Amino acid sequence: MNGAQSLIRTLVDSGVEVCFANPGTSEMHFVAALDSVPEMRGVLGLFEGVVTGAADGYARIAGKPAATLLHLGPGLGNGLANLHNARRGYTPIVNIVGDHATYHKKYDAPLESDIPAIASSLQGWVRESDSTKDVGADAAAAVAASMDPPGRVATLVLPADISWGDGGTAVAPIPPRKPQAVAASKVSAVADALRSGEQVALLVGGPACREAGLRAVSRIAAATGAKPLIETFPARLERGAGLPAIERLGYLAEQASYQLSGVKHLVVAGAKSPVSFFAYPGKPSDLVPDGAQVHTLAELDQDVVGALEALADEVAAGVEPVLQEPQRPALPSGPLSAQNWVEVIGALLPERAIISDEANTSGLLLPAATAGAPRHDVLTLTGGAIGQGLPVATGAAVAAPDRPVIALQSDGSALYTISALWTQARENLDVTTVILNNSAYAILRMELQRVGAESGGPKANALLDLSRPDLDFAKIAEGMGVPATRATTAEELADQFKAAIAEPGPHLIDAVVPSMI
Amino acid sequence: MNGAQSLIRTLVDSGVEVCFANPGTSEMHFVAALDSVPEMRGVLGLFEGVVTGAADGYARIAGKPAATLLHLGPGLGNGLANLHNARRGYTPIVNIVGDHATYHKKYDAPLESDIPAIASSLQGWVRESDSTKDVGADAAAAVAASMDPPGRVATLVLPADISWGDGGTAVAPIPPRKPQAVAASKVSAVADALRSGEQVALLVGGPACREAGLRAVSRIAAATGAKPLIETFPARLERGAGLPAIERLGYLAEQASYQLSGVKHLVVAGAKSPVSFFAYPGKPSDLVPDGAQVHTLAELDQDVVGALEALADEVAAGVEPVLQEPQRPALPSGPLSAQNWVEVIGALLPERAIISDEANTSGLLLPAATAGAPRHDVLTLTGGAIGQGLPVATGAAVAAPDRPVIALQSDGSALYTISALWTQARENLDVTTVILNNSAYAILRMELQRVGAESGGPKANALLDLSRPDLDFAKIAEGMGVPATRATTAEELADQFKAAIAEPGPHLIDAVVPSMI
Repeated sequence: MNGAQSLIRTLVDSGVEVCFANPGTSEMHFVAALDSVPEMRGVLGLFEGVVTGAADGYARIAGKPAATLLHLGPGLGNGLANLHNARRGYTPIVNIVGDHATYHKKYDAPLESDIPAIASSLQGWVRESDSTKDVGADAAAAVAASMDPPGRVATLVLPADISWGDGGTAVAPIPPRKPQAVAASKVSAVADALRSGEQVALLVGGPACREAGLRAVSRIAAATGAKPLIETFPARLERGAGLPAIERLGYLAEQASYQLSGVKHLVVAGAKSPVSFFAYPGKPSDLVPDGAQVHTLAELDQDVVGALEALADEVAAGVEPVLQEPQRPALPSGPLSAQNWVEVIGALLPERAIISDEANTSGLLLPAATAGAPRHDVLTLTGGAIGQGLPVATGAAVAAPDRPVIALQSDGSALYTISALWTQARENLDVTTVILNNSAYAILRMELQRVGAESGGPKANALLDLSRPDLDFAKIAEGMGVPATRATTAEELADQFKAAIAEPGPHLIDAVVPSMI
Repeated sequence: MNGAQSLIRTLVDSGVEVCFANPGTSEMHFVAALDSVPEMRGVLGLFEGVVTGAADGYARIAGKPAATLLHLGPGLGNGLANLHNARRGYTPIVNIVGDHATYHKKYDAPLESDIPAIASSLQGWVRESDSTKDVGADAAAAVAASMDPPGRVATLVLPADISWGDGGTAVAPIPPRKPQAVAASKVSAVADALRSGEQVALLVGGPACREAGLRAVSRIAAATGAKPLIETFPARLERGAGLPAIERLGYLAEQASYQLSGVKHLVVAGAKSPVSFFAYPGKPSDLVPDGAQVHTLAELDQDVVGALEALADEVAAGVEPVLQEPQRPALPSGPLSAQNWVEVIGALLPERAIISDEANTSGLLLPAATAGAPRHDVLTLTGGAIGQGLPVATGAAVAAPDRPVIALQSDGSALYTISALWTQARENLDVTTVILNNSAYAILRMELQRVGAESGGPKANALLDLSRPDLDFAKIAEGMGVPATRATTAEELADQFKAAIAEPGPHLIDAVVPSMI
């Protein structure tokens, strides 16, 4: 078999069954080899940011990596923003980046590019295959590296001649390392803090955001009075009726400082000690309250859930978690607003939904409105690089074809990776996208004030404004093959949302929701 | 003044009058400062690839850089593909990349990213401003670096606290270096080759693709029988009636080898010695014919046009250039084809047009059909990273508001940076976009065969196919505020093209042109 065939065969044997691809000439042998390995599914994206974001969404739901196929440095560059988000979410991804043939690189042809420099910015795993016979081993190593706790982006650079050369061999999977157990002494030390009588907050993230971790956190909080908090942007948060309802640490430093005020011990497990998302003049970057002590129960590459369960057994033996009762808001009426659109979602969210949440400022009230909805997963904007929501929804739908995916997507952010809609149509994915169309980068209007910049100049405001002309997302979606409607009232949104989730395949609702800001 | 104000003031004093921007929180003081410097125009792009491609198109026409405003590593990443194209076209661009405040970086907040690694891949000029008082000097240095022959991408990283800090001062422009003169002995040596009696080809690029250079090349060819050729992907090529008509070296190695067959002396001026765009199994990368001698008349950072004129004076004294006669194809009729759509453009191209050409395979016959059209500029895909055409057209229209801009754009490539249409609508730019919609990555179908990959598998072909669903670019354009129509016959295309160029502002024609491949 040639190098490409050995690569794909090894990926499949290692559990990688989907390749989100945007190929070019240097990847043609990989493309041709897809037909020789029936187990590998190829999914075309029309822009690399769609490809990488979809791989991120896929892995968050599947619990294992997808591959991407990218075209040299420019292709990797186009995919970089959503790879940044994946890095911040510790999502395993295996990038295959095609490159010129090894002997061709010295000619500095137009697409010659510094792939290692670009890939190195992701601070993951990077390797260039330098012989066809080793491509299989390189692929197995890439998968293992991506899955090594806590997960990361692995990038394998595949020169065209290594891909087309003969002599490739498939290689057996390399079992990924297990997360390291947390020492009992560490658990006991945190237990002592919880029993100190001083105020404790317990901030958890990563794998602790799923049922087992949440139940342990809830037990600890119920038994000790510690305040439980979930990291601001979890990669995958399980929530809804029947699960503990734990609030997230606020995005705004002001919110987070309020949530943490009075705390003397901050226990972190699978999360970083909290810092401000951005710096603001005269405001602290470190959000740990003055005088508070930070206790790291479990690092992200450790067994976070095991440590939380051990802690719960020590401080909350016999105590049950507090579970959210089923509860939905009433269907609202009247013109759409930031207050009522979330009630529509809360009232109608289908069973077993996956929410891809990039609603940004429009979604401030979403958690409350959906807290008692049927159990669901929420995938958030882990790295702050906007343009993630539609691709992540796309990948999640590939991973879970039996679950409804709901993309709640602000307008400005949607435009970065809008062609994800086409891939949803191509693959007939059951994704309902609701665009929160407020004709503004509303978050930047808020930030302009928060950073203390002189505000209000017409040129500054023009750069934060998405009107002139207004974007018609229904037309854009239809142009990409996705049926679409436009809603301006809560009743319209409810009717359209019901219809969209009732019918398989992708749909888009362009919801005109005025900004709160 | 604060750092941002000193930066913008210095840019303006150095001749940088337009900033294509996609800002975020860390850039808010720069955004606010725009209102304090009236001479700087801010142009919003909804994706960074639009911003960087527009800066490229602007500079190719204006002959001086625009600034970009980008948001940390992910913003630079999104802009990287079109910066790669700018690098390959030697276009001067000044990137301003906002970063976290210097004191905030150690907290590794979610958007913390390795900006220098990403920027270094462009092999241009990179600096991080580390004090507010030096920002003005850094800006002047960035402009000078971008303009230093032959031109490059300069990236200035601007931490938020350096931007908002007080104590900035505007700095006077640094005059860019002039291109170095070519030694008379070099000109004489090339003249000897031209007089050798052996077959000579003269391959020119860069500044030689404008009138003065073309006239010198034509004179040399007329006097000596040398075969004149223009580099495959010139950044800006002047052509049409009244100018010498010189063919471009073919994109396909097979074409280029044919053009160069029999050549014993290859003289290059402002161009690289020809190499294959990609490597193909068993085919040479170096396209210089066996046994031919390469003579470099002028490197790109030298005075290329001066050297050609000196050479012309030596070997072609008194010889006039051969100029293209006015000549247009007749308006065709019938269903659109790869043969007849170019005749529509050739027949109707307006006076003083600027063509942004990313027609790829659909445009193979375009040069012949437009050779005798009124004098125009052609801006091509210099670096091979697709998704350049619409942004470059956008920037060119900002640079030349009095000239009609025609974007000839293949369908697959258009999707990478489609929101350029919104910026065209926002700025009311006179751009007529013709989408060559063949529902395929047609060039990859060709390349799949050329690389010798096994072709024809259904999974492979699905990744090269843009149907299922078909893209409706008219709807997409209307969704972004650009009036649009759809053409399936030559008559429809002619009528719609005439109407589009007659009315100011942006228009799009979705031309259904079946692939030749």
